[in-house]
Amino acid sequence: MNYPSGIKKDKTTITRRKIDYKNRGMNLENDINETNNYYIEKNIAFIYKKPTPIKLVKVDYKKGRIDEAYFEMPSTTDYNGIYNGKYIDFEAKETTNQKGFPITNIHKHQIQHIRNIYNSKGICFLIVRFTKYNETYLLLAKDFLEYIDNVGKSIIPREYFINKGFRIKDKYIKKVDYLEILNKMEDEK
Amino acid sequence: MNYPSGIKKDKTTITRRKIDYKNRGMNLENDINETNNYYIEKNIAFIYKKPTPIKLVKVDYKKGRIDEAYFEMPSTTDYNGIYNGKYIDFEAKETTNQKGFPITNIHKHQIQHIRNIYNSKGICFLIVRFTKYNETYLLLAKDFLEYIDNVGKSIIPREYFINKGFRIKDKYIKKVDYLEILNKMEDEK
Repeated sequence: MNYPSGIKKDKTTITRRKIDYKNRGMNLENDINETNNYYIEKNIAFIYKKPTPIKLVKVDYKKGRIDEAYFEMPSTTDYNGIYNGKYIDFEAKETTNQKGFPITNIHKHQIQHIRNIYNSKGICFLIVRFTKYNETYLLLAKDFLEYIDNVGKSIIPREYFINKGFRIKDKYIKKVDYLEILNKMEDEK
Repeated sequence: MNYPSGIKKDKTTITRRKIDYKNRGMNLENDINETNNYYIEKNIAFIYKKPTPIKLVKVDYKKGRIDEAYFEMPSTTDYNGIYNGKYIDFEAKETTNQKGFPITNIHKHQIQHIRNIYNSKGICFLIVRFTKYNETYLLLAKDFLEYIDNVGKSIIPREYFINKGFRIKDKYIKKVDYLEILNKMEDEK
């Protein structure tokens, strides 16, 4: 279940005393949103987080107020948009797991979506933050799918991200500057 | 205010007795969603409607239930995705106005978004249905922006859609087959 940032923050507050790294990790979504806002302000890219899908049950139409609703499972990834005329699509997740990234963090529908976008020649990837190490990696859909199709469906070891992924270093303004990684890949082609 | 389809349907039911065309017009969103589902099933394109943004006020985290929330103004268009590796972005609106399309139907933020996507070389357009005539047109961002920048900001006459836009004929399965229009444009290049 992919809750909006408000809820994540709450969880964070509760666990703050326990591990500061976890708290930092919980901010991945905010870091990416800040980065996207920077890209938008500078006319670099137009990539947005999709709102969390909601199932409406009770709505006061006059007041435009929702009195009862439930979070729904997202069928696509959280972020998509355009950069240099190219379609960009990614999912962002943080994990407190020290061994690796539990694949259960990505829903079945989202994996199919990642496959579809990859097959459609979109630029598709995961951004995963290992909160215990405060390391953030970009893993291309190609390498993500290669792992789950050929190796295993339970957990992707941190080593796989170190070897196949691209480390995204913390920055002051562009907190999660993933476009820099994509540019480097483009240059190396 | 851009309400989710559920609400549109309610309004429709109320006005059904009045004008059948209006009722038909109110189904544009459903027609596009059906068309998108067809594209997805056939692996032709992966274009989705974004959920309506919601401002959460009261949430029961344990039950994942929203007890108070409000609809928010969308800052981007409703639909985006990928087709043949290209970024697709559009807004869909129906109008009961017989003279033309009132530009107030598109929020200021959405117009800026359309401008941004057009400048980023994304394939961006409006799908407008004139419910009184049951005519549906695709108008490219280029022609939409040309009108509001050079002619007027209140209403785009139906004639402009007839001359500059592309009529999308009703179909049985692909109700609003806008990709057929894009393909024709591509062929004519």
